[in-house]
Amino acid sequence: MADFKRYFPIFDWGRTYDRRALGHDLTAAVIVTLMLIPQSLAYALLAGLPPEAGIYASIVPILLYALFGTSRALAVGPVAVVSLLTASTIGQVAEAGTASYAAAALTLAFLSGGFLVLLGLFRLGFLANFLSHPVIAGFITASGVLIAASQLKHVLGVSADGHTLIEMILSLVTHAGDIHVLTAAIGFGVIAALFGVRSGLKPLLTRLGLNTRLADFISKAGPVVAVAATTALAWGFDLEARGVALVGAVPQSLPPLTAPDFSPELMRALFIPAVLISIIGFVESVSVAKTLAAKKRQRIDPDQELIGLGAANLGAAFTGGYPVTGGFARSVVNFDAGAQTPAAGAFTAIGLALAAISLTPLIYFLPKATLAATIIVAVLSLVNFSILKSTWRYSTSDFIAVFATILLTLSLGVEVGVASGVVLSVLLHITKTFKPHIAEVGRVPGTQHFRNIHRHNVETTPSLLTLRIDESLYFANANFLEDMILNRLSRDANTIQDVVLMCSAVNEVDYSALETLETLNTQLSEMGVRLHLSEVKGPVMDKLKHTHFLKALSGEVFLSQHDAWAALSAGTLQANPA
Amino acid sequence: MADFKRYFPIFDWGRTYDRRALGHDLTAAVIVTLMLIPQSLAYALLAGLPPEAGIYASIVPILLYALFGTSRALAVGPVAVVSLLTASTIGQVAEAGTASYAAAALTLAFLSGGFLVLLGLFRLGFLANFLSHPVIAGFITASGVLIAASQLKHVLGVSADGHTLIEMILSLVTHAGDIHVLTAAIGFGVIAALFGVRSGLKPLLTRLGLNTRLADFISKAGPVVAVAATTALAWGFDLEARGVALVGAVPQSLPPLTAPDFSPELMRALFIPAVLISIIGFVESVSVAKTLAAKKRQRIDPDQELIGLGAANLGAAFTGGYPVTGGFARSVVNFDAGAQTPAAGAFTAIGLALAAISLTPLIYFLPKATLAATIIVAVLSLVNFSILKSTWRYSTSDFIAVFATILLTLSLGVEVGVASGVVLSVLLHITKTFKPHIAEVGRVPGTQHFRNIHRHNVETTPSLLTLRIDESLYFANANFLEDMILNRLSRDANTIQDVVLMCSAVNEVDYSALETLETLNTQLSEMGVRLHLSEVKGPVMDKLKHTHFLKALSGEVFLSQHDAWAALSAGTLQANPA
Repeated sequence: MADFKRYFPIFDWGRTYDRRALGHDLTAAVIVTLMLIPQSLAYALLAGLPPEAGIYASIVPILLYALFGTSRALAVGPVAVVSLLTASTIGQVAEAGTASYAAAALTLAFLSGGFLVLLGLFRLGFLANFLSHPVIAGFITASGVLIAASQLKHVLGVSADGHTLIEMILSLVTHAGDIHVLTAAIGFGVIAALFGVRSGLKPLLTRLGLNTRLADFISKAGPVVAVAATTALAWGFDLEARGVALVGAVPQSLPPLTAPDFSPELMRALFIPAVLISIIGFVESVSVAKTLAAKKRQRIDPDQELIGLGAANLGAAFTGGYPVTGGFARSVVNFDAGAQTPAAGAFTAIGLALAAISLTPLIYFLPKATLAATIIVAVLSLVNFSILKSTWRYSTSDFIAVFATILLTLSLGVEVGVASGVVLSVLLHITKTFKPHIAEVGRVPGTQHFRNIHRHNVETTPSLLTLRIDESLYFANANFLEDMILNRLSRDANTIQDVVLMCSAVNEVDYSALETLETLNTQLSEMGVRLHLSEVKGPVMDKLKHTHFLKALSGEVFLSQHDAWAALSAGTLQANPA
Repeated sequence: MADFKRYFPIFDWGRTYDRRALGHDLTAAVIVTLMLIPQSLAYALLAGLPPEAGIYASIVPILLYALFGTSRALAVGPVAVVSLLTASTIGQVAEAGTASYAAAALTLAFLSGGFLVLLGLFRLGFLANFLSHPVIAGFITASGVLIAASQLKHVLGVSADGHTLIEMILSLVTHAGDIHVLTAAIGFGVIAALFGVRSGLKPLLTRLGLNTRLADFISKAGPVVAVAATTALAWGFDLEARGVALVGAVPQSLPPLTAPDFSPELMRALFIPAVLISIIGFVESVSVAKTLAAKKRQRIDPDQELIGLGAANLGAAFTGGYPVTGGFARSVVNFDAGAQTPAAGAFTAIGLALAAISLTPLIYFLPKATLAATIIVAVLSLVNFSILKSTWRYSTSDFIAVFATILLTLSLGVEVGVASGVVLSVLLHITKTFKPHIAEVGRVPGTQHFRNIHRHNVETTPSLLTLRIDESLYFANANFLEDMILNRLSRDANTIQDVVLMCSAVNEVDYSALETLETLNTQLSEMGVRLHLSEVKGPVMDKLKHTHFLKALSGEVFLSQHDAWAALSAGTLQANPA
């Protein structure tokens, strides 16, 4: 029973649900619903899907996440980066706007949901750790640029395409003569208004005496006002007849029951992209959920989050949606608006369902340029090239990873970009440990402390070479240690009689390193030099005990470097009374 | 000039070359030449090339290695594993026995040589460190099995094919009815004789009073005797007429000047295999060279070895050969026979050149079954499944890497096998660091030592949580640390006021980990808990100094854990006088 309940966090917060929480949740739901209507339509457009797919993707998925998710404030639905990934993936197997395109989007959501649920059941959420922060930051920044560029065609009223920044720009330049002035006026008008609201309205309202939170909410309602205003304009002046592209007819219905396309060929083609979308969506969602939970000293369970997000995606697959995840902007609004429990999400779903059956006729007159403009303003807040500067200052390899991710995402597309970023950060990490930091140490006079002979004033004994290894020993760096010691010995071949490896920072010795230590022991023996170890950690010692190495070792294993010094420097000093 | 000389180690050993060294080198050359004649022919057969290609691949490459290589005893030429890789690679782009097959082998040698020289010039030899010992051992064992299986068709006198073990066995079973009895008699006769010589002759000769070294050399001459005897049989009894496959006509000439096929399409197809062959050949060769050098307290320079092996392969590409590397068996024979300098290699090359122009008419009558039998006996000594047992005992992840390499090499072929082994060992290493060992520590009473509270009897203070992190902090494990601390705090939310991270084993903090520490600092601050660091290493501190993290840190950075204990436990004890 306890185990069963683990998969239904609703039993946890449901027990204590009261009228106060209900009031907070209802308020938050109204605000989030207003925000989500234009956003859902816009992201569906970005994904290359009909606008209603965005609304549908925000109803059942939210309900399922409310049932299975552990975050109290996360708002699940279509988000910018996942919509872009969807467009880029499905664009390779179907033509945008066709029925097979929409069916493939369902398949993608199904694969993504299934994969997330499996990860969650097997508690494999830690796999998301392969994505380093700089790779994520670089990817999101580059995606923001790509998304903004992809929406320019709607703002300008031209038909253009392309999956990379260069393709998009070239295509726009080719079609520069076709710019539709009225469309562009609406598009740039909305962009200017939204930026104006963001930077000017909030301070103005605050100065007029409104409290900060209310001023904040009014500013965030900007997109809703822009949608309403331009829809009214389009209807009043019959802008469709003047060539402005409108959203057009949207079915007036609740989310339909849909079946993904299960053809094996399509499933195979979409599998890898689905894995990528799942992991990127999961990482984004979990970081938002963690941040919000920490503010209220709540905890989220990453493995249960996988199940919650997986269920949401499976829900999207069967109700006309497409891949979803927890969004940053909407979750923050939900949190700030006072949402106490996932019930707020359920109420949002009801609000969107009402919108789907009542407001859709009005959406006919909504200009596409308005939606594109809201997307551009939203994603430009994701673009943050400062990660380049801060990684540059901190570490070269982190900079290389973020730079390559941005460059490759912009030039070769989102999938190649993020995949290269992951592979590169793993390889760079391994490469860093190829040449571990190894310090020759001596004793700080009068103490039991041993420090780097190049940084400190320490005592040494000519016959004793002590090396502190500042890295775990494994296949990638074992050779380096061997070469380094043999080179060092060839310099002082005749004086050194004992070599001590101080292993206080060696957390692991893998099989390759064990073999290298065995070889080294033999090589040193043949030169008449004894090999010793000191300060070997418990877990490492436990493993070494089962090997022949310790039996074959020409020297001893000392508990502390001080013991090694006491035993070896005394003996040697007698032997070399220089 | 010094830099120029670096690339020509011959200036190093050439200066002191004398008559004594000459005598030793000449003796070694005669012995190695005798060994190499049958071996070169056999490995060419294994590579799917005409027999003379093996001889040619042993002449100019040896001379070039003598000029550029740093090992005094390494014998370069065709080796079993590289021959198998060549057959498997070229078999995908050309039909064995055709002119385009031979030309593609030259291209492969050219690409391989060029790649090795480039690695050497840029001093990138450390890249070979991506191959872990278990992966190499598993790969060589599986290759030995594959090679032996691939030669069975020649021993049985049937035509069979296949690149994986199952394909080979199925193909042999299908052709079981075609077994040529006389061929099989020769083949199994040679195998039995060679195993007999190896296990029985040497002890016998020693017992008869010969010294061990001489007995060893006579035993190693087994293949030469088998070749001579079966060639005589084939000639005397006209075995060709009785259906025994012979080597046939071999051109009687010095290595010809040849040009690789430089077509871009072929170069592209062979590029990745060439990289693989280069690295595997390099790793095998360097480990042999290192072992032999250490016996005489000599050193080899891995980067210069790349140039030596690269030059040898470029030589092979232009003189009718195919990819070569330093072989284990021949190098040991060379060393044991007393070779002092690379001049021994040069003399071997002259010996083989003489053989190429004088002995080739005799080779006509050599049965292919004899060559196949010598290959089988030679490679079975490479097969050593005990690596499975020893890794199983030592560490699960090393076992997984070696098991997967063996299994995939046998079932999917050599290239997939070794590539999977490399990727797997990298991923397993990273995965191991996902959940780093983190110990909660307390003070050993009356000392300045701090140990794991679960392993030792130590003092703790309720308000102070000290965690020793036994791993570098980077993107793959930063989240784990954060989750672990927050979970620990949610258990003792009200008593803990200070958290100290003891960083004595943290060799690196990458940008992802830095961001996680910043987040953690903020989260703890909001809970009223201070975050401290202790025993941060010099290089890590150098990097942290340039960040905002240290300024934002709610607690302090203590030089030693003892200082942290002194400052925090005292204060807390006053605040919590329980």
